[in-house]
Amino acid sequence: MPGESEVISMIRARAWQERGSGVELGIGDDAAVLRAEAGVDFLFCSDLSIEGVHFRTEWAGPKLIGHKALAATISDVAAMGGEPRYAVASIALTKGSSMEFIEELLSGMFDLANAFGFSLVGGDTSASPGPLFIDTSAIGVCGRGRAITRRGARPGDLVYVTGDLGNSALGLSLLKRGFRSDESVSDSSDPISRAIQAAIKPHLIPAPRVLAGRMLGLGGLATAMIDISDGLGTDLGHIAEDSKCGAIIHAELLPIARAVRDLSRAGGETDPVELALESGEEYELAFCSPPEASERIREISRELQLPITRIGEMIGESGLYIQRDGQTAMMDIKGFEHQI
Amino acid sequence: MPGESEVISMIRARAWQERGSGVELGIGDDAAVLRAEAGVDFLFCSDLSIEGVHFRTEWAGPKLIGHKALAATISDVAAMGGEPRYAVASIALTKGSSMEFIEELLSGMFDLANAFGFSLVGGDTSASPGPLFIDTSAIGVCGRGRAITRRGARPGDLVYVTGDLGNSALGLSLLKRGFRSDESVSDSSDPISRAIQAAIKPHLIPAPRVLAGRMLGLGGLATAMIDISDGLGTDLGHIAEDSKCGAIIHAELLPIARAVRDLSRAGGETDPVELALESGEEYELAFCSPPEASERIREISRELQLPITRIGEMIGESGLYIQRDGQTAMMDIKGFEHQI
Repeated sequence: MPGESEVISMIRARAWQERGSGVELGIGDDAAVLRAEAGVDFLFCSDLSIEGVHFRTEWAGPKLIGHKALAATISDVAAMGGEPRYAVASIALTKGSSMEFIEELLSGMFDLANAFGFSLVGGDTSASPGPLFIDTSAIGVCGRGRAITRRGARPGDLVYVTGDLGNSALGLSLLKRGFRSDESVSDSSDPISRAIQAAIKPHLIPAPRVLAGRMLGLGGLATAMIDISDGLGTDLGHIAEDSKCGAIIHAELLPIARAVRDLSRAGGETDPVELALESGEEYELAFCSPPEASERIREISRELQLPITRIGEMIGESGLYIQRDGQTAMMDIKGFEHQI
Repeated sequence: MPGESEVISMIRARAWQERGSGVELGIGDDAAVLRAEAGVDFLFCSDLSIEGVHFRTEWAGPKLIGHKALAATISDVAAMGGEPRYAVASIALTKGSSMEFIEELLSGMFDLANAFGFSLVGGDTSASPGPLFIDTSAIGVCGRGRAITRRGARPGDLVYVTGDLGNSALGLSLLKRGFRSDESVSDSSDPISRAIQAAIKPHLIPAPRVLAGRMLGLGGLATAMIDISDGLGTDLGHIAEDSKCGAIIHAELLPIARAVRDLSRAGGETDPVELALESGEEYELAFCSPPEASERIREISRELQLPITRIGEMIGESGLYIQRDGQTAMMDIKGFEHQI
C-alpha cells in the first residue's frame, strides 16, 4: 500500500482537473467549500460498500468497485427525485492495495461523477486491518418541498418500476457459481453465454436512474419513490408501511429481465417472478403515481428510452399482496440480505 | 448482531426525537431532506474511524468510540471556521455487536450532536466481516466566501494554537502500555495517577473546537486554519505548503499539557517538545492571523475560557523551523501515522 500522502497527492491532482461548478474549494483542505443555492432543499445520504459483503475483488476490478460503491449513493439521491451535486468518498485500503488499484477505484468514481454531472469533492483514506471498506456520501438538490419521500402514496395510486428486474440477483448467483464477466462474449456467441453476461453486467455496473428520478420530481408526478436496493417486495413494503397503506403487485405485469426468462427456460430452478421480487441491488426506481399522471409517465419513458412499467396499485388495506394466475396472496417478503 | 431492520427502527425512533431545525426529513428515507440557507457556503467532509487503527474496544466503550468518530469530522468543520449543521454515520458492525453496544455508540454521536447543535440525519449500516468500521460525514455552513482554508497565510502572520498539546500522544502511549481510563482516580489520588488520567481522557474524548473556529471565522481573524489531527508539525506544514510560505515555531511558547510535563519530570523518556509537535488526534486548532488581530484573539480566548497561545510566525522562506535554546533548526516532521 502506498503512503497516505502519496495517495492524497494523486487524488488532489485528479480532483482539481475535474472540479465542477459550485465548488469553491475541492479535495485537499479540511472540508470542501460549496456555494449554496437559493430556494432548494438538500438531500444528504451515505452508503457502505464492503469487500466480502457488497463485492469481491475476484468478481470485479477496482474501477467497477468504485463505480458501484458511489452509484448506490447516487441512486438514493435519484430516489428522492433529486439531482446529485457533490460527493465525498472514504476509503480504507487493504495492505495489498497498489497505487494502480487505488487510481482505478477513483477512476470509477470520477467517471460516474462526470457522467451524472456532480463533483467528487473530498473524503478520507486510511489503512484497513481487514477488508477494503468504502463509504460514500452525497449531497443532491431538489425543488423546495419537492423531495419524493416514501410516505406520500395513497390508495388508488398506480405502482411503477423503471427498467427490468431480476438481473442483479441472477448475476450475483452466477458469480457465486464461478461465472465471470467476459468481454469476449458477443452477439454471435451462444444464447446461454449471452444471457449469463446480460445478467452479470447489471449486477456489477448498475446505472442509477438519476434522469428518471429527476423528471418525476420536476413534474411532481410521483407521490412516493424508493430505489430497489433490498428487492422490489421489501422496498415497496417500505413505501406501503411509511405511507400507511398497502400494495398489490400483478405478477404478469412484472418487467422480468430477458436474461432471467431465457436462463429460466434453459433449466434454472428459480422462479423468475420470485427472483424479480427479491432481487436486491437493482437500483431501479419503484414509485407510486396517481392514474391521471400515466400519460406523462409514458412520455418520460419514451423520452429517456427507458421502460417504465405499471406493475400494480396501492390499496387502503395494509400489507403487500401478489396477484398471480388469478389468485391473490399475501407476500412473504424475504428481501435481499447481504451475507458475509 | 441484531437484524438490520431492528437496528434501523431503533435509530429512526431516536433520531426522530432529536431532530433539529432545518431538517425537513431525517433518518429513515433514501436521503435526508434539508432546507437550504441563503447566502452561505457549505462545508462538506468525512472521516474514517476503524477498529484497530483509530480505536480499540478494550480502551474505550462504544459511547466514547461514537463520540470520537463523529468529533473528528466535526473538528474538520470547525477548522474551516464553520458551524456544523448535519451529519450522517455509516457503521459496519462486527458479528459480536450487541444492540446495547450499537445504542451506546449512537448515544455518543447524538450527545455530541446535541452539545454542538447539529442533527444526525441519516447513514447506513452493514455487517462487517472484519473490524468495526465507522465513517461519518458532515455538512457545515459559514458566511459566503468566509471559509478559512489552509492557503491564505502570509509572511508576518502570527501562528496560534488552541488548548494544550501532547496529551493525545501521551494518552495513546499509556493506553498501549496497559493503562486504562479509571473513573476512581480523583483530585485526592497521587499526582502520577492523576497525570495518567489527564492524558488518557483527551485522547479518548476529544473536544472539537467549534466555538473557537466559528468566532475566528465570523471575525475574519484567521488567514489559514487546520485542526491538529496528524500533529502540529505536520499540520502547520500543510498550511505553510498550501500558503506557499514557511513557519517558525518557538519551543518555549508551546502550550505543553501539564500531564506531559508532570510525567516527563517523573521520568518519561520522551521529550515534551517533540511530543507536543508530533501528537496526533489533538483536534486543537492551529491558525495564522495578522499581528493587528492579536487583541481580538485574546478576547476570544477570555470569552471561551480556552487558552489560545501564540507559538510562532509565518515567514517568506519555505520550510518549517523550530527555535529552541537559541538555536534555529529545520524541523524533521515525523507527524502521526496510524499503525495497524
